[in-house]
Amino acid sequence: MAKSKVALGIDIGGTNTVFGLVDEKGKIESKESIPTNAMNPAEDLFKRLFEKFAPIYNEYTEKFQIIGIGVGAPNANYYTGSVENPPNLNWGMVNLITLIKKYYDLPVAVTNDANAAALGELKFGAARGMKNFIEITLGTGLGSGIVVNGDLLYGHSGFAGEMGHTSVIAEGRKCGCGKRGCLETYASAPGLKRTVFELLANSTESSVLRDVCYNELTSKKIFEAAKSGDKIATNAFKFTGKILGQAMADAVAYLSPEAFVLFGGLAQSGELLLEPTRKHLENNLLSIFRGKVKILLSGLPEGDAAILGASALIWHELKNNS
Amino acid sequence: MAKSKVALGIDIGGTNTVFGLVDEKGKIESKESIPTNAMNPAEDLFKRLFEKFAPIYNEYTEKFQIIGIGVGAPNANYYTGSVENPPNLNWGMVNLITLIKKYYDLPVAVTNDANAAALGELKFGAARGMKNFIEITLGTGLGSGIVVNGDLLYGHSGFAGEMGHTSVIAEGRKCGCGKRGCLETYASAPGLKRTVFELLANSTESSVLRDVCYNELTSKKIFEAAKSGDKIATNAFKFTGKILGQAMADAVAYLSPEAFVLFGGLAQSGELLLEPTRKHLENNLLSIFRGKVKILLSGLPEGDAAILGASALIWHELKNNS
Repeated sequence: MAKSKVALGIDIGGTNTVFGLVDEKGKIESKESIPTNAMNPAEDLFKRLFEKFAPIYNEYTEKFQIIGIGVGAPNANYYTGSVENPPNLNWGMVNLITLIKKYYDLPVAVTNDANAAALGELKFGAARGMKNFIEITLGTGLGSGIVVNGDLLYGHSGFAGEMGHTSVIAEGRKCGCGKRGCLETYASAPGLKRTVFELLANSTESSVLRDVCYNELTSKKIFEAAKSGDKIATNAFKFTGKILGQAMADAVAYLSPEAFVLFGGLAQSGELLLEPTRKHLENNLLSIFRGKVKILLSGLPEGDAAILGASALIWHELKNNS
Repeated sequence: MAKSKVALGIDIGGTNTVFGLVDEKGKIESKESIPTNAMNPAEDLFKRLFEKFAPIYNEYTEKFQIIGIGVGAPNANYYTGSVENPPNLNWGMVNLITLIKKYYDLPVAVTNDANAAALGELKFGAARGMKNFIEITLGTGLGSGIVVNGDLLYGHSGFAGEMGHTSVIAEGRKCGCGKRGCLETYASAPGLKRTVFELLANSTESSVLRDVCYNELTSKKIFEAAKSGDKIATNAFKFTGKILGQAMADAVAYLSPEAFVLFGGLAQSGELLLEPTRKHLENNLLSIFRGKVKILLSGLPEGDAAILGASALIWHELKNNS
């Protein structure tokens, strides 16, 4: 009997690295997590990773054929396989394909985490069957993966799809990238928090959030305050949705996606965020696009999305090359 | 001896419609122009066009094989072949492919004029050999054609690539599309003129342009004033380049093109426009893109660009399908 096929998906985060074997339908056959140890070089991470993976490989290789390895990593370049000065990782410049092929002679593909998430949605989630969509991850930043004609948009450099660093407010908030007014300084978990502080400063409205200091404020607290009817918290979501919806309208003018797929902690705020986002998206669309662009929530379970996305990369790659 | 191959390119403008036979190297074998008569239905235009083309067809068909017909028209949808309520044309909704195939049973493809211009640059002009670039036409509006992986970006609807209607200034200038603050209200010939009037209103600087009324002011007059050292005119170009460069930086974040190709009357202003555009593009790029995105001027002769672009569409189409 032919062995079932699985792909190894690896997602490298600032704190933890998760990896697992995933079949073509998105069933996770095994899943592991190790600390990334961000201060150590990449070689150290992969040494520990493949030490942990070796017995799994030996066990599963009897039942399964491992078809390849997909990696989601910050600043990863799909074209070259290299990662260049990733934020939060003390790696410098390293080629992940070369590094991984020392352990297993399998097809390897790498991309950044937002792109991997988009492929996860395309293969296993909310964007199944779509040819043109934009995945937006609303977390500590705003990551985006753009699918055009059924493939990820990489552009000339390999680094296309940086919607989080498009400008939304001239001379606006300072961004971690060094610029000002980037979308992610408004539409992200820290962005929501910054908006709360702006509203606390500018209004005289009473709010439970006046008792929380900046370093202790979280999206979850803002969400709960909004749910209890707190005006400042509600308005912070409204403002976030306004900025996000306006930016999405610009993305539609460039790319004409069928849908946006929202992922990440902030996306789980439901209608508090979605209602203003939808409204300002529609209000800012050219008439030819109005009423035709969907906003969907991720179809992937939060805990498994990273592994599913990373494995989708290599499934997608091998399908394109076959 | 095998006949040489030519394509018929048709460009439909608000005033004139030009058409001609173009070979695969961009050599124009014949070229004609007829009035569009914008108030009449599309059927009338194509009846007159093909009456004029019939003797040309008969003459050229002895020497050449006509491989297909490419059409550039406002609001044309590549996927469906139809044109829907084009601005300046009293056409309503009409399918150009169906209409044209009544005259000649040849492959027909249609797209909007900005997309045709991009393909013209790709096949015959400044973007030869590029896989990812953005063509920007700076004329009475700002048209854009986006090439990704060697193909035009059409998106889900067929209407992707509307960079002129991305928002650059919140609550900014009223645009013909009904929205406010669209890029084309700043970066276009009328946009430059509006900027001059804003500067005349806001400053006390003397200027030769204070003697010209709105309806008589042209980009050419502003260009000439700037060349003579007029401060208002020079600053109008600076402001236009600033807005354009900032918007181009956002386009790079989305699409990571290798180059922008600028076309149209305003693009011929040379360094007056290019210098501030280049500066503000660079200043607003994410560090990974800095110093890596070219700004090029069109490689097509202005008078022939429309026919070259329209014919490039069908050349490109047949190459993709062969």
